[in-house]
Amino acid sequence: MSDCLRFALTPGEPAGIGPDLCLLLARKRQAHALICVASTALMKERAKELELDIRLIETGPDNWPKQPAPANSLYVWDTPLGTPVETGHLDQANAAYVLQTLTRAGQGCLDGNFAGLITAPVHKGIINEAGIAFSGHTEFLAELTHTEQVVMMLATRGLRVALVTTHLPLKDVADAITTERLQRVTRILHADLRDKFGIAVPRILVCGLNPHAGEGGHLGREEIEVIEPTLQQLREEGLNLIGPLPADTLFTPKHLEHCDAVLAMYHDQGLPVLKYKGFGAAVNVTLGLPIIRTSVDHGTALDLAGTGKIDCGSLQVALETAYEMAQSCNRP
Amino acid sequence: MSDCLRFALTPGEPAGIGPDLCLLLARKRQAHALICVASTALMKERAKELELDIRLIETGPDNWPKQPAPANSLYVWDTPLGTPVETGHLDQANAAYVLQTLTRAGQGCLDGNFAGLITAPVHKGIINEAGIAFSGHTEFLAELTHTEQVVMMLATRGLRVALVTTHLPLKDVADAITTERLQRVTRILHADLRDKFGIAVPRILVCGLNPHAGEGGHLGREEIEVIEPTLQQLREEGLNLIGPLPADTLFTPKHLEHCDAVLAMYHDQGLPVLKYKGFGAAVNVTLGLPIIRTSVDHGTALDLAGTGKIDCGSLQVALETAYEMAQSCNRP
Repeated sequence: MSDCLRFALTPGEPAGIGPDLCLLLARKRQAHALICVASTALMKERAKELELDIRLIETGPDNWPKQPAPANSLYVWDTPLGTPVETGHLDQANAAYVLQTLTRAGQGCLDGNFAGLITAPVHKGIINEAGIAFSGHTEFLAELTHTEQVVMMLATRGLRVALVTTHLPLKDVADAITTERLQRVTRILHADLRDKFGIAVPRILVCGLNPHAGEGGHLGREEIEVIEPTLQQLREEGLNLIGPLPADTLFTPKHLEHCDAVLAMYHDQGLPVLKYKGFGAAVNVTLGLPIIRTSVDHGTALDLAGTGKIDCGSLQVALETAYEMAQSCNRP
Repeated sequence: MSDCLRFALTPGEPAGIGPDLCLLLARKRQAHALICVASTALMKERAKELELDIRLIETGPDNWPKQPAPANSLYVWDTPLGTPVETGHLDQANAAYVLQTLTRAGQGCLDGNFAGLITAPVHKGIINEAGIAFSGHTEFLAELTHTEQVVMMLATRGLRVALVTTHLPLKDVADAITTERLQRVTRILHADLRDKFGIAVPRILVCGLNPHAGEGGHLGREEIEVIEPTLQQLREEGLNLIGPLPADTLFTPKHLEHCDAVLAMYHDQGLPVLKYKGFGAAVNVTLGLPIIRTSVDHGTALDLAGTGKIDCGSLQVALETAYEMAQSCNRP
């Protein structure tokens, strides 16, 4: 199968639902060779706990597979745990293990061994408690790949929302909307929609910062002083940008029908609609990296690990999105 | 018909789609006696322009109707224009007329002549250009009824969203979330859901201010310092409040199924989801007034006036909501 690509899948926090999601997905044959970067012992234990009969096929740099694993089997690149896992219980002794799986997967993408990386959730708190500074997957991968600016985008069927600012206190948002940041983020969004999603001239709707997009300056002046001039400048570079538009009327069929992505100024302006629309089937895509990386949009759900009562929808969409992106990249 | 109530309907800006909406709705018999507070001459002209055969029945304080108007007819409380209307073209000479319709309708509610007031859109700009300070329906009615604090709530089938702050520049939002304001707004929301919507103990979901509701202080401290203590105090008064919750995961079925309203901290946190979900069928309800007042959630659409190519969905929901509220109020 010449079209078969190879992807890395990291189950993340070993006590959470990440391993469960990987095993549940392995019941069906994937479109590509999916390499789970994890402890084989952990995956074996969790499969037993879930009463899933999944064959674990060890693989690694010396014997990469060239085709997808059959149904009910999963390729595993064995990565040893720090300590055995008690399902649902965090342990600092496995923090380094979690980062090791990410390093292997991310470096493997840089080295050309993987066409992309799909991540299940990690638990930031326990990694920091283990004495390792860690502010999230995205920042970790940005550092690993020497990337200065990344852009967070969430996607579900029919809607993509990228953010100019992400995890900032609300009071700091207005000051963070600078010409420089808006330029960098918009250019990355445009370039990645073109290069990783195969959209020749992406049409991007841009939200205002203030209610009613400032209403001609009556409800804030950032649209007039920063956003409009910056968008105008970017349009002169050939970007197809509409806005700034009021966020409360932008997310309606009239506007969304002919757009490839919405650029929201901050977290709670763009993500509530996305998650409402895409509930259980949303994917987090990191733009701006030299590699393809998608992620689930939920947490480790420690209380549900080992129960099998979980929904694989988000991971399924994360996989499909990574596959589509890799194929768009490879398109001649 | 002893259950028949009387409501005032103001078409708002005479050059916009308000008169059209009232005429289009009059094609069907309403559940209650609906009194259009407007110029009879204007309504006659617009009906002709729309080629609608609607019988206009003049009414007023001396002869209030006791039953709904039949299909294809509309009660009108004649209120003279300042100058004849050119459809689609604003004219300062009618600014005083617009306010006169609002005053008659609002005072009529206070006097017990109407069970509630439903408003079509006005055009703030032209009223101000006419030299009359006017910042919106809501503020006008608050002043008319001597109300210090009102609360803006938008509703659609299955979702109600009230706002702690409304038309503020984003940079001013965090400072406006004070204990005092949060207390006043939440108490009004609770009381009106109980008294005007007939919900015995309303269950209210409260959003955090910051992304992830502050994530334990890492993304802002307003939740810890202001919101949580205030909610706790209000709970001790008997209010059923859940939160503060992250806004991006609150608007999902798990949380919304058993809630009567969401309280968002600011405009673009709560309204994008509401308008996405309720597109074309959302209603704006002003809480805290001594009268019932609902409104459409859209503008004057000057370019569509006289064309008939408009959707009455929002006004229909505004009417139905006002009827339901009045009946809840009147329930023994």
